[in-house]
Order: sequence, then structure tokens, then C-alpha cells
Amino acid sequence: MAATDPVQLTARLVRCASVTPKNDGALEIIHEMLSDAGFDCAWADRGGIRNLFARWGSRGNGRSFGFNGHTDVVPIGNPDHWTMPPFGAEIRDGIMYGRGTTDMKSGVAAFVSAAIDFVKETPPDGSVVLTITGDEEGDSVDGTAAILDFMAENGERMDVCLVGEPTCPDRMGDMIKIGRRGSMTAWFEVIGTQGHSAYPHRANNPLPAMMRLMDRLASHTLDAGTDHFDPSTLAVVTVDTGNPATNVIPRNCSATVNIRFNDSHTGASLTEWLEEEASRVRDAYGVDIKMTIKVSGESFITPPGELSALVSDAVAAETGVKPELSTTGGTSDARFIKAHCPVVEFGLVGQSMHQVDEHVAVEQIHQLKAIYARILKDYFA
Amino acid sequence: MAATDPVQLTARLVRCASVTPKNDGALEIIHEMLSDAGFDCAWADRGGIRNLFARWGSRGNGRSFGFNGHTDVVPIGNPDHWTMPPFGAEIRDGIMYGRGTTDMKSGVAAFVSAAIDFVKETPPDGSVVLTITGDEEGDSVDGTAAILDFMAENGERMDVCLVGEPTCPDRMGDMIKIGRRGSMTAWFEVIGTQGHSAYPHRANNPLPAMMRLMDRLASHTLDAGTDHFDPSTLAVVTVDTGNPATNVIPRNCSATVNIRFNDSHTGASLTEWLEEEASRVRDAYGVDIKMTIKVSGESFITPPGELSALVSDAVAAETGVKPELSTTGGTSDARFIKAHCPVVEFGLVGQSMHQVDEHVAVEQIHQLKAIYARILKDYFA
Ligand SMILES: [Zn+2]
Ligand SMILES: [Zn+2]
Repeated sequence: MAATDPVQLTARLVRCASVTPKNDGALEIIHEMLSDAGFDCAWADRGGIRNLFARWGSRGNGRSFGFNGHTDVVPIGNPDHWTMPPFGAEIRDGIMYGRGTTDMKSGVAAFVSAAIDFVKETPPDGSVVLTITGDEEGDSVDGTAAILDFMAENGERMDVCLVGEPTCPDRMGDMIKIGRRGSMTAWFEVIGTQGHSAYPHRANNPLPAMMRLMDRLASHTLDAGTDHFDPSTLAVVTVDTGNPATNVIPRNCSATVNIRFNDSHTGASLTEWLEEEASRVRDAYGVDIKMTIKVSGESFITPPGELSALVSDAVAAETGVKPELSTTGGTSDARFIKAHCPVVEFGLVGQSMHQVDEHVAVEQIHQLKAIYARILKDYFA
Repeated sequence: MAATDPVQLTARLVRCASVTPKNDGALEIIHEMLSDAGFDCAWADRGGIRNLFARWGSRGNGRSFGFNGHTDVVPIGNPDHWTMPPFGAEIRDGIMYGRGTTDMKSGVAAFVSAAIDFVKETPPDGSVVLTITGDEEGDSVDGTAAILDFMAENGERMDVCLVGEPTCPDRMGDMIKIGRRGSMTAWFEVIGTQGHSAYPHRANNPLPAMMRLMDRLASHTLDAGTDHFDPSTLAVVTVDTGNPATNVIPRNCSATVNIRFNDSHTGASLTEWLEEEASRVRDAYGVDIKMTIKVSGESFITPPGELSALVSDAVAAETGVKPELSTTGGTSDARFIKAHCPVVEFGLVGQSMHQVDEHVAVEQIHQLKAIYARILKDYFA
């Protein structure tokens, strides 16, 4: 029985221009391969997004191991900046180039091919569940969340789940992610009274209030980090007024603040803190301050244990590297899966993700498939 | 001998659409009237701007009293917002409406007609000099400055000068301006290192540095005022980043600061202070800070004395109001004249200047002419 080639599958997926929310045939390729291999496949589409749910083995029987990933990719930007065709999957000197080669068509190809070969060679006493979405890089409202809703409605489950996102900062195997910090954004508008800059006492400039508020927020230490988390961070990402006249005191000014927070905070506790700070400045400066909050995700963690040990051991066995258990980085779909079952993330080196000339070493795709295969073998052993 | 009607002259001037840098025949009307009255008139045009110099009496002989004003006006804005024709000079219930009725075609008409009648009725032992520009509301580079250059080249002089700008905040006669604060603008750019807001330690956000710098500047007390001046003021007029992505730490941020300063500072001393503040923040935050300075004018004053007493007494005699000697407000062409001779400013109530439906009470134009006439009479007495 010939092994499934994860490099060939990666190349086929990269040649689909599946920039969110487009799918461009990517998930159909996987649907067909998995169906041929005996998986029960179902579309869990929502809001114009194509999503694939696939299960090998019966629903109620034995342990269930899940993989999660996405086939959508970020835009290529200016095509003139690419030195290789962005959807060509061309290989040069052992490196495959193209949008999604790292994030994360290679990861999907690795777990799809590992799963197909595993169930063929050593049919487990349990089930293998693959959830693959076309909306991870977008607003993620109709992606993995939609598949999980589909699973709940249909009595499907995973006992544990491994997300195949690129996780390694420097070399293959150096990092597993066991959680993520939460993320929230606050939009501020400070409203004063417009006037002439020669008569500032007749105006109420919103800018000093905004400067003080942002200075207070930016210089505040949220915490010193926790057991599994780095310190929370706050970034003032933009402050804008748009006043072209040097002799005019503007009426209003806006600012945006992004907070990545660990398990010593919640979206609600930080919202309360921001409201207090805004209120203090509002009173001191006599301005009006409007604040809008969006909590993109609370912090979450799958504490070090069985699942992280399983993945860690397989990584060490295949690469010789002992991975760090980390909670760094941006949000991922693990934040949705966390509510369903223990979840960790492991994939290849992510350095070129979202960049021009995104690329992956062909050898790393083979290695990733081998790691995923070993995880399946050990899990069902 | 019929008196010259300042209201009729105001109306003729208002009907010229002399929005800077256009003249639209306004100064020609005055040129003709003054020539007919025996004034030596000369054009002191420069840079496409029409400027009028006029002298009654011989150049070298006796004392010389000067008036200064402008016939250019600011744009009308959206004509639909006007309820009266903006260049119509229509009079309703004793009020004349139109752009420039206040600032300052009525002022020019008042001193032109006062001067014509004065030299006819009581020819003085000296000269009366009128300098009227078409570039006060613009960048003023080729306006009064050009007339003063013309005068220097041609051996012309004024011993004192009265600028006819509107100066009264509330009622006719309540304020004479004897000086102005200086004005300067500083443009800042703070440059850091762009990055992802999930990894702020790999970036260097310019915004906290900018917030700190602007907070320091905005909360600093420059001085408590001086003998003839209000406290200096600093206004942060705009802060802009233009970063639309909440997950991106921006590379740079810009800000503009406008300072109105009294005689306890100079443009140079304030520039030095700003450089020190920028340098302190630069060092503390490890960012690059660029600063560009433009000093529009240094502060100046004609200390209370003969000239202000002359004007003040005439105002009190005609209106019954004792004017305050003030140095408030925006810049004016007096800043150029100051280098030539003692200068004060007096004109009517400026409340509607630069606004929609700008207007003046016809009675005030007559009153202003009477004040200017009395000043001439007292000066040459
Ligand atoms: Zn991804
Ligand atoms: Zn004016």
C-alpha cells in the first residue's frame, strides 16, 4: 500500500487561490481523498464559508482524536513583490514557495495524509476526526465555530484535538502551544470643544486628555506573567485627529488600544479598568470620552498533562528536539475548540507566514506528517 | 464741502469679490478717491498681490501719521449657508451684510474717508500715510511687508501707525491692541519599529513616546503672564497615526503643536525647550524623534505711552468707553509695522468676522470714521 504524499497534497492545495473567504476547490480535494479512504465527510458550511467535517470510525465508539486546520490564506499583497508565483507551489532547492505553504496548507496536508495512512495501516479502536475550515484568516465567525456547532447538532465529538498551525519559532519541534492569551480591542473617542488656537480658554482641546489617558494606559504594568503565561501587554496602535489647520483646536480625537492578556485578567475585568481610567481623565479634563470594546477571545489554557506529553514525546522522538510548552502569539481557532475538549497546537516553523515568498522546506512537510502519524499511533496504542 | 461717506465706500469695496489673493478692483477704487483728494499714490505690488501706498503732504516735512489695513477677505465658504448675498453689501435694519463688512473693508473705508476729509478741511503741517494691502488673510508675505519694503526703498516713513483691524470684543471702543503674542508651530514625528501587536517586545511602538511627549508639553505651564501679556499657551492641535490594523504596531506617528507666546519667550528659547523635551523622551523610549519648527512671528509690544493715549482718548471722547489696552488674539500685520514705528490697532467689534452672514452696524462705520478723524486732529494739533 503506497503512502500518501503530503508534499504533493500541499502543492495541490497551494494551487487553489483560496484567499478568505474563497475556497477555490481546496476543500473538495481533501473531501475526495478522505471519502476514498473511508472517512465519513460532511460539509459544515455557514455564511458563504466552506467547512469540512470528516470522521473515520463510528461516532460513539472508543476514543476520538481530532485534528483541526484551515485551507484559507491571507492575500498575497502586491504580486510584483513575489519572486516566485504566489499560487504556483514551485519547488526550488528543496523549498516549496507559495501563499499557504507554511500557514497552513502543509499542516493540513500532513495531518490528512497521516490520518489516511494510519487508518489504513492500523485501523484504531476509536475514531479520527478532521475539522478543516475556510475561515480562519478572516473574522472566523463561520469557520471552526461553525464546524463545532455542526458537531454539537449531530452528536459528534473529539476527546482531544491537535491544531496543525505553524508553532515553531526557530527550528522544527521547538514549540508546542498549550494556550493563548486573550485579546481585546478598545476604541476611544475624546470629545472637547473646537476653537481657535489663539484663544484656547474658549475651547476645550480633547488632545491633552487623550495624551494623558494613553500615557497612563501605555505605562501601566498589567501583571508580571503567570505560571504558563508571559506578562499581559497593551499596545496603543493608533491615535488620530485629522486636523489640518495649525490655528484650530480640534473637537475630537480617536485612539485604538489592543490588549493581549493572560489568565490574571478577563475581558470584563479589563473593560472595568479601562472605564475607570477613562472616567478619571474625563473628570480631570472636562471632556466627553466614548469607549467601545471588543473582546476577540478570553485567555485559555490546556494545562500541561496527557495531551501535551503525547505531542511532546512524539516531537522529541521524530526531531530530537524537546519542545517548549508555550502560550505566546496571536489568537487561533484553538480558542473555540477549548470549550469542546483539551486542545494543543503543533506545526512547523512559521517564520515566513503571511509574508511575500512564503515557503516551506519539503523535508519539513515529511517530518510533520511523521510526527502526526506517531501521535496517532501513540494515542491509540 | 461734502463729507466723504464711509458707508457708501464700504459698500463699494464689499461688492468687489477680493478673496485673497484676488483684488477685483477694490484698491483701484481707493486709489482713485485718494488721488482726487491730493494724495500721492503708488502701487507697491509684489508676487501677484496688489498693494497701495498713499501719502498726503510732502515726504520729509513734519510729523507723519500712518493708517494700515487690508481689502482682501477670507473665502465665503458654502454660499448656501448665507442668508444675504455675500458680496451684496445689502443693508437691512441698519445692518450691512457681506464678506469683509467687519474684517475690514469698513475699517479701511473709515480711515480713508476720515483722512480725505481731514486733509481737505484742516491741512496738517505734516503727512498722512495710508498703506493698504491685498494680502493680509493669506500668507502675508507680499502684503504689508512688501509695502514697508517699498517705503524703505523710496525713503518713505510713518512716525506712528494705527492698524484699523476690528479689535473690540463686545462693544464699540472697548479694546485697543498694543501688541501681540508671538506664534510658532512645531511638527513632530516619532519613529519606532513596526511589528505585530501580539509581539510588542519585537517592535518599538512610537505611540507611548508620543503620548508622553505631548502630555509633558500640554501640561507644562509656560509662564503666568507678564505686565502687558496673558500667559503663553500651547495647543496640541493634531496627533495622527493612520494605522487601520488593530493587530499592527505602527512605525511612526506625527503631531503638531501651536504655541502663542508672550515676551518672556522667543521663538529660539521655545525651540530649545522643545528640543530638550524631545531629547528626553527620545532617550527614555529609544525612538527617533524629528522636529520641524516654524516661528510665524515673535511677540511684540508698543508699551502704553503717547500713541496708545492718543487713540484711547479719542475712543473715549467719541464712544464714552474707556478702552482696555490688550495684547490678545491672533497675529496681524502690526507685527511687520512694529519694526518700522510704534503701532497700535483699533477698529470695530469683530464678532462676525470670518463667519457666514458677516455684518456691521452702519452706525458703527460712522462712529469709527469719527474716531479716526479725531485721532488725526489731535495728533496734528
Ligand atoms: Zn494559520
Ligand atoms: Zn483683518
